[in-house]
Amino acid sequence: MEKSSCIHFCFISYLVLFIVVGSWYRSTNSSLPNSTLQTPWSTSKNRIFSNSKASSVLETQAQTSIDHSAEAPHHPLDPLTVQEINKVLKWSKGDALLPRKAQVLALLNGQSHVLTVDLDSSSITSHAINSSSGYPMLSVDDILAASKVPFSNAEFNKSIAARGVPSSDLICLPPSAGWFGPNEEGKRVVKVLCYSKESTPNFYMRPIEGLVMTVDLDTLEVLKFSDTGREIPIPKSTDTDYRYTAQTKEPQMEPLNPISIEQPKGPSFRVEDGHIVKWANWVFHLKADHRAGLVISRVMVRDSENGELRDVMYKGFASEFFVPYMDLDESWYFKSYMDAGEYGLGMSALPLVPLNDCPRHSYYMDGIFATPDGNPFVQPNMICLFERYAGDISWRHSEGLLTDFQIREARPKVTLVARMAASVGNYDYIFDWEFQTDGLINVKVGLSGMLMVKGSPYHQAPNQDAMSGPLISENLIGVVHDHFVTFHLDMDIDGANNSFVNVNLVKERSLPGESPRKSYLKAKRKIAKTEKDAQIKLKLYDPSRVSYD
Amino acid sequence: MEKSSCIHFCFISYLVLFIVVGSWYRSTNSSLPNSTLQTPWSTSKNRIFSNSKASSVLETQAQTSIDHSAEAPHHPLDPLTVQEINKVLKWSKGDALLPRKAQVLALLNGQSHVLTVDLDSSSITSHAINSSSGYPMLSVDDILAASKVPFSNAEFNKSIAARGVPSSDLICLPPSAGWFGPNEEGKRVVKVLCYSKESTPNFYMRPIEGLVMTVDLDTLEVLKFSDTGREIPIPKSTDTDYRYTAQTKEPQMEPLNPISIEQPKGPSFRVEDGHIVKWANWVFHLKADHRAGLVISRVMVRDSENGELRDVMYKGFASEFFVPYMDLDESWYFKSYMDAGEYGLGMSALPLVPLNDCPRHSYYMDGIFATPDGNPFVQPNMICLFERYAGDISWRHSEGLLTDFQIREARPKVTLVARMAASVGNYDYIFDWEFQTDGLINVKVGLSGMLMVKGSPYHQAPNQDAMSGPLISENLIGVVHDHFVTFHLDMDIDGANNSFVNVNLVKERSLPGESPRKSYLKAKRKIAKTEKDAQIKLKLYDPSRVSYD
Repeated sequence: MEKSSCIHFCFISYLVLFIVVGSWYRSTNSSLPNSTLQTPWSTSKNRIFSNSKASSVLETQAQTSIDHSAEAPHHPLDPLTVQEINKVLKWSKGDALLPRKAQVLALLNGQSHVLTVDLDSSSITSHAINSSSGYPMLSVDDILAASKVPFSNAEFNKSIAARGVPSSDLICLPPSAGWFGPNEEGKRVVKVLCYSKESTPNFYMRPIEGLVMTVDLDTLEVLKFSDTGREIPIPKSTDTDYRYTAQTKEPQMEPLNPISIEQPKGPSFRVEDGHIVKWANWVFHLKADHRAGLVISRVMVRDSENGELRDVMYKGFASEFFVPYMDLDESWYFKSYMDAGEYGLGMSALPLVPLNDCPRHSYYMDGIFATPDGNPFVQPNMICLFERYAGDISWRHSEGLLTDFQIREARPKVTLVARMAASVGNYDYIFDWEFQTDGLINVKVGLSGMLMVKGSPYHQAPNQDAMSGPLISENLIGVVHDHFVTFHLDMDIDGANNSFVNVNLVKERSLPGESPRKSYLKAKRKIAKTEKDAQIKLKLYDPSRVSYD
Repeated sequence: MEKSSCIHFCFISYLVLFIVVGSWYRSTNSSLPNSTLQTPWSTSKNRIFSNSKASSVLETQAQTSIDHSAEAPHHPLDPLTVQEINKVLKWSKGDALLPRKAQVLALLNGQSHVLTVDLDSSSITSHAINSSSGYPMLSVDDILAASKVPFSNAEFNKSIAARGVPSSDLICLPPSAGWFGPNEEGKRVVKVLCYSKESTPNFYMRPIEGLVMTVDLDTLEVLKFSDTGREIPIPKSTDTDYRYTAQTKEPQMEPLNPISIEQPKGPSFRVEDGHIVKWANWVFHLKADHRAGLVISRVMVRDSENGELRDVMYKGFASEFFVPYMDLDESWYFKSYMDAGEYGLGMSALPLVPLNDCPRHSYYMDGIFATPDGNPFVQPNMICLFERYAGDISWRHSEGLLTDFQIREARPKVTLVARMAASVGNYDYIFDWEFQTDGLINVKVGLSGMLMVKGSPYHQAPNQDAMSGPLISENLIGVVHDHFVTFHLDMDIDGANNSFVNVNLVKERSLPGESPRKSYLKAKRKIAKTEKDAQIKLKLYDPSRVSYD
């Protein structure tokens, strides 16, 4: 990756290319009728108001009297209107593209500038200035600058000398930014932690425990130095190198022959105009994104009866990956990563390795982002798209044992997967969006890479219950933590005016004499929400067919 | 399948070939130490006793004073002893086979005979007679005989004539056997239900609702005739035929190109002596079984450090598949299928279809069973064994964005699957035992086939909450039901003397000043059972390597 070095003049920018009406202005709860104004959820809203004894007549009127269908924007910062949103939904291939604009966030002398650039006229159409630099996503330049700060700090150099560690063996990195109390209010502050890379590329397993520097990202000053771990040895490097080329012992298993996915006639999907994916009964828009990594938009499935395309989802992406650690120590309490919002899942997605990360016949899509100084940057092979076949069966039925029908019907399960893998420090997150021909979309997240570990003075655990996680190796604690991944899923099932139906089964006792059954329990369906728009259809088989030569 | 017709002389037998000491005498909770006597769970048992205020001294002594290690059998029906079980566990290739015996269950004149046959000497070594026929598994002859009974019943013929259904359009079948009240005590009784196969092989969708005959399997008499559904139309056959060859409409999706699993050098597993499977770091015994379908025994995995084989599981199989329906009507209350114990998952497993049921390069294993008259019968291609690759990643890590290490390590996920599919009437159950190189065994059950539906007088649902399930099509109710699958998993992790460790996390409040963290919660590990034998080892990577040409 191209790195720019702008130390005094900190000009951090990122470009977010967007079709003017995107998800930025659209909350997940909003509803976008196609042409006439409708009020989804109005039934339940009205129910809430009629049940609310305290609601005044004025409030009730305010909720029902506004007609949004004809609203026009009056101010540059007004949210998108119903008519503007419909303009986008109605766009189809051949229509002129809507005006394309880019949003630029520039940090200059501790102030943040938010600019909107019209890309056709190359003019700035809006420019707002905030008096502080705020908390934008960490850029690669931010991280690299912070990671160099410790080496010019006298206390730091004294501390690592006391540990006998040469500075050339060290790698320092900041966990994602945070707010660490009123003393640091208004400042962009990160904590910087260090690891030894001596004899291993797996420095994550060799923390310099207890050594923490609090660094101001704008001034690159060390605001606070803390060292509580001088008595904790650096865990050994033995057997930590995970690379194949570094293995000296033969694996204790029989080798596996080469294996991949066989497609003698090639894959069945097409990618049109760089981003429109067409496969089986699915059509959707796929793109790489700086922050979310991978964004799926305008997902449609073909009706199995009449062949018409039906809306399924307006937009879906990973909105955050929050990873808090359950350790309260001075050097750990702040570890609550926001991997999407602070590092960017797209910025952390390195190229996928053909055959190892994705099977043969995969199609690779690049990511186009901006570097911290605003120049374009291409991340090659960032997304892969492939047909998945695992030897599984989507549907089968055999007859012949008890009836005269001799039937052996079986449909292999073939799906389409769009994949992206983000390497956020020690962790690798694999995001799979899998489309099934029966209409199901599976979103899968695989967690890989290394643990974030804590150094410990112990070779064997004296009291595991008293620690923040189990001792997983000598001098290493695997600190208990969570991975919360959240998704933005703006569903448009048959249009924006859809609703959930929640069916619960409850136990009910049968009446005396109601049935010869000896047990008294029967199940009763309870429908929690209106079933008005929902239809349950008998689906006997998956109509997809795979042929073999 | 070969069918014998023994109507008056009902000689129903089945052979269960077993190595003398099998799971038949071994409960899931028992423990089998390898040489010296050990008491697994003794710690927790002692804890229970010491905590129990009401336990007498006598009870406590009785639990701890028996030495099982030197016990010898004294009676032919004594359970296997520690020494006998160890004799089997210590058997290895090259040793003489232990004596092989078969158990035969024969029904004769309403009595059941249980015989043990020594296969080397061709002699009967035991013979017990019970005065009733009991409730053995339904044989194919039982089912076929019961399915013919209605057609010679006058009430039945009158009822179907009133419905205008020619008897040649009917298929009658019994749900699995049951006990239907004191009047039928001591009799082998089934209910027989009928369906119309006119214009479709999918007769399951065309129930003759409300028509039920209670049939004695020994005498083939109709004990009870019930018809409560004359006003319920037989649901239409339109669009119910699921066979590819019967489809008249083009599928509303783009066709899929051929796809399977590519293995230019063939699969990496071997099957030795017909049943021993060796793959990567796994070794196990695989066989077809009349009742359980598929049995996995003596599962061992190779230690990744020293290459020695370590015990994982003595035996694993599906022990039952219980499917109760939540409808109390006279014609439905008895539908509580026991698919394994009453039909037999193995007997219901028809041949797998290459490329549709299992991928290319699969190895197929036949099942050898006994027909109802005692003759051997071969079910070809009943089990398939294949290496599964779905394009997934077992482990990956990339470096290069923030450090100088340029690393792109990714290991494709390859597993071994043993599969069997049972077609129990309308339902198809797919059983997958999947072995991962990291030591995990996944047991997956796929449910396919058709719903068991109920006829309804309604085209549209008047009150769905009052019905036993949703109206899924005109005149068809999908009755709410459960599928409970239970497994016999006799685990021998590093021998029989193993235990579970249950680690729970509980929330705990931090003390004032304990941490600069603003939230007051921290996690604490609570170990519910003894961790004595358990070791958590740091596993950095999966050592399996796949090469590509």
